[in-house]
Amino acid sequence: MSTTVKIGVIGAGSAQFSLGLVKDLCLTESLAGSQVCFMDINRERLEMIHKLAARYAAELGADLRLESTDDRKVALQESDFVINLAFVKGHHHSRAMRELTAKHGYYYGGVGLGSYYQLRLMLDVARDMEEVCPDAWLIQSGNPVFAGCTLMTRETGVKVCGLCHGHYGVYGIAQTIGIEDPERITWQAPGLNHNIWLTHFIYEAKDAYPLIDDWIRTKGEEYWRTHVATHGHDIQMSRGAVHQYRMYGLFPVGDTPRGRGWWYHTDIGTKKHWFGEPFGGPDTELVRPIFVANLEKRIAEMTRLANDPKASLVEAFGSTKTREQQVPIIDGLVNDNEGQFQVNVPNRGALEGLPDDVVVEVPAIVNKKGIQPLRVGSLPSKIMLECILPGWLRMERGLVAFENGDRSMLLWNALESHQTRSYDQAVAVLEDLLAMEGNREMNEHFKFPSNW
Amino acid sequence: MSTTVKIGVIGAGSAQFSLGLVKDLCLTESLAGSQVCFMDINRERLEMIHKLAARYAAELGADLRLESTDDRKVALQESDFVINLAFVKGHHHSRAMRELTAKHGYYYGGVGLGSYYQLRLMLDVARDMEEVCPDAWLIQSGNPVFAGCTLMTRETGVKVCGLCHGHYGVYGIAQTIGIEDPERITWQAPGLNHNIWLTHFIYEAKDAYPLIDDWIRTKGEEYWRTHVATHGHDIQMSRGAVHQYRMYGLFPVGDTPRGRGWWYHTDIGTKKHWFGEPFGGPDTELVRPIFVANLEKRIAEMTRLANDPKASLVEAFGSTKTREQQVPIIDGLVNDNEGQFQVNVPNRGALEGLPDDVVVEVPAIVNKKGIQPLRVGSLPSKIMLECILPGWLRMERGLVAFENGDRSMLLWNALESHQTRSYDQAVAVLEDLLAMEGNREMNEHFKFPSNW
Repeated sequence: MSTTVKIGVIGAGSAQFSLGLVKDLCLTESLAGSQVCFMDINRERLEMIHKLAARYAAELGADLRLESTDDRKVALQESDFVINLAFVKGHHHSRAMRELTAKHGYYYGGVGLGSYYQLRLMLDVARDMEEVCPDAWLIQSGNPVFAGCTLMTRETGVKVCGLCHGHYGVYGIAQTIGIEDPERITWQAPGLNHNIWLTHFIYEAKDAYPLIDDWIRTKGEEYWRTHVATHGHDIQMSRGAVHQYRMYGLFPVGDTPRGRGWWYHTDIGTKKHWFGEPFGGPDTELVRPIFVANLEKRIAEMTRLANDPKASLVEAFGSTKTREQQVPIIDGLVNDNEGQFQVNVPNRGALEGLPDDVVVEVPAIVNKKGIQPLRVGSLPSKIMLECILPGWLRMERGLVAFENGDRSMLLWNALESHQTRSYDQAVAVLEDLLAMEGNREMNEHFKFPSNW
Repeated sequence: MSTTVKIGVIGAGSAQFSLGLVKDLCLTESLAGSQVCFMDINRERLEMIHKLAARYAAELGADLRLESTDDRKVALQESDFVINLAFVKGHHHSRAMRELTAKHGYYYGGVGLGSYYQLRLMLDVARDMEEVCPDAWLIQSGNPVFAGCTLMTRETGVKVCGLCHGHYGVYGIAQTIGIEDPERITWQAPGLNHNIWLTHFIYEAKDAYPLIDDWIRTKGEEYWRTHVATHGHDIQMSRGAVHQYRMYGLFPVGDTPRGRGWWYHTDIGTKKHWFGEPFGGPDTELVRPIFVANLEKRIAEMTRLANDPKASLVEAFGSTKTREQQVPIIDGLVNDNEGQFQVNVPNRGALEGLPDDVVVEVPAIVNKKGIQPLRVGSLPSKIMLECILPGWLRMERGLVAFENGDRSMLLWNALESHQTRSYDQAVAVLEDLLAMEGNREMNEHFKFPSNW
């Protein structure tokens, strides 16, 4: 079976993702003849990506119709799928905010304002979809997946599926502990986005958790002493991740270890202790500039390729599929090429102990019938009470603050930071952040309640 | 209508309460002929109280049968009501624990171990009741009411009703803001024990919240500058309580302002700022010794009275009813002398957004039909997300840690203290506390999980 679809890509200036998407489409015959409309407000970047994508498809002889626009509604028009990648404020704004918090005594991102601009944009996209392409699927591929997907599914009738890369961490576990063929493990790691826990880890039909325990006992210390991370996210088997396994009883997967306990994150020395050399995990002053510089280098390289009509793009980008889930999910939905995926969708009983209208991250079977989450049962009460339910409340507070524009809830959030030492410090950092260049709309949106 | 009942009082060495109970029984004709069995492991104190109570009843010519025992099951035998007041470890142990945490850098009670001994005793009492007097009501009058009542109602079939004094704070609000006849207000303040919020505040059939707002605007600053607390708990109209009203949107009642945000409690200067001179609230190194000394002075005075057969006890203790709810509730249940009370009972829909098997503090109509909570609807989402639901999770973590004997959950709790500055500090204070004289049983109960 083969079907043509139209895919609108919002925030298509994310070059690596957009080129990967085109690659996956080119290599998926059952979607031949499909149309992709790239949308971004950065027209220069958009043009470059459009050019590269068209040349890449031509080199492969793939049948793909490509368009680009800076008008969101044009991208949505007649779309069957919308992929939203947009990151409104960008890495430089994040850095400026971190630098300001540092002046108030906070270490790297120890306090924040929530995700006002991201949530605003997500809701705008979903509302536009309700109007322009109400039957399309929205595949949310930018953060915050958890809060954003919950907000969009509550506030609109659009079908939303959030995707993230974190769950691939499970293959990192398998590889590090010496499982010969990591691709042959079967596993399950449900939870909330960035908060998923390895409930099942099976290799050759046997529980493979004892292999993790053996590794920790016999090889852990040496690994933590000698392993040199090649990138900031290389923390899946760090001392911190293993410590969390001990604290919480199941192994934390992907971005999960990155987001637990404040005590792993107090300063660069502590971060290195828990998350390894040389970076101390993905959220440090050492690795973040490298991460952003690499992003910029990749853009520069792509720009070079776009301007060099003789360059072979197949050589530059390869011709094997990425491991992104977007295109296989689309293929499953429209062509019944069934697969199992890790998705973020409204709970509706998939994970016990959370309300139906909260978006959970769970495995799902995807085919012509739709995206059908597996009912994964329950997580251990310790994980629910120390990780999942507190994460759920934090998300709900973010949504209530966003919807009510309640500045006192931002203040409460700043106060609850374990790096905050006094009431006055929280007030000062909050007001300074809101007064920053680039936060004007947010500053106007959030007011103190009338009794203040 | 008049009925005789047997009341077993566990922890009857709490002299003030036990004498108050006898006073209320003496002054409640419809319970004439009833029997009270005082139980405590402190036989000396018990004897003194028994002696005083018998003389007090005789002076009033009341028909009351009094007994005392150090055997719990004797006290429970044939009881219709059991009142549990027991405080296992006592104030001196609490002080020793605080002094130890101070050595680890914590200010007054900034980290703790939970309520192992109290929960253990409560569960033992409830289990004994199941065996000895399964139809009796358990009136839990010692802390932790919230965790203890939830535990007992989940683990046993005993009917449990928890009582606390906090809600009387509402009359303190009325009095301070100048309402002429505070007893004529009507009000509602549901929530969880020590976490109750003034949803309704009515005087002369009108919403009286504007009177609070007026007082804050016109008299607040002067009150905070000039008011001198007569006791540590005199914080109902403190700057801190009013600040919480601003933060959360409803006025916090009784013990509620005492238990919010860490930022009110970082040191004595901060406490005085928020909770007033001269004590800075009930939980400070300034007032706690006075509180304990006063308890001991009262015991000494009672001992003196007990040893002076010529002293008039009616003169010493008065002959008006206390404002305790225990006797009126008993009178309502057995004699249909209906009343409305503030009780802690399993939720079962009384307060929206919490599970049925969580004990909530709500108003209830008490009569021959039983203790029937009013369905109070919902609290504002801000209060649910910032106060009630986090409090619920904290309680549930305490119960899971208690039931599983999971030392890692005690560690997590120590880590989550906003006074904890590092992982190592939490580990050290936890191990030192558990190794303390008097904590041996607890130290043996709590083990690290097998993967530790």
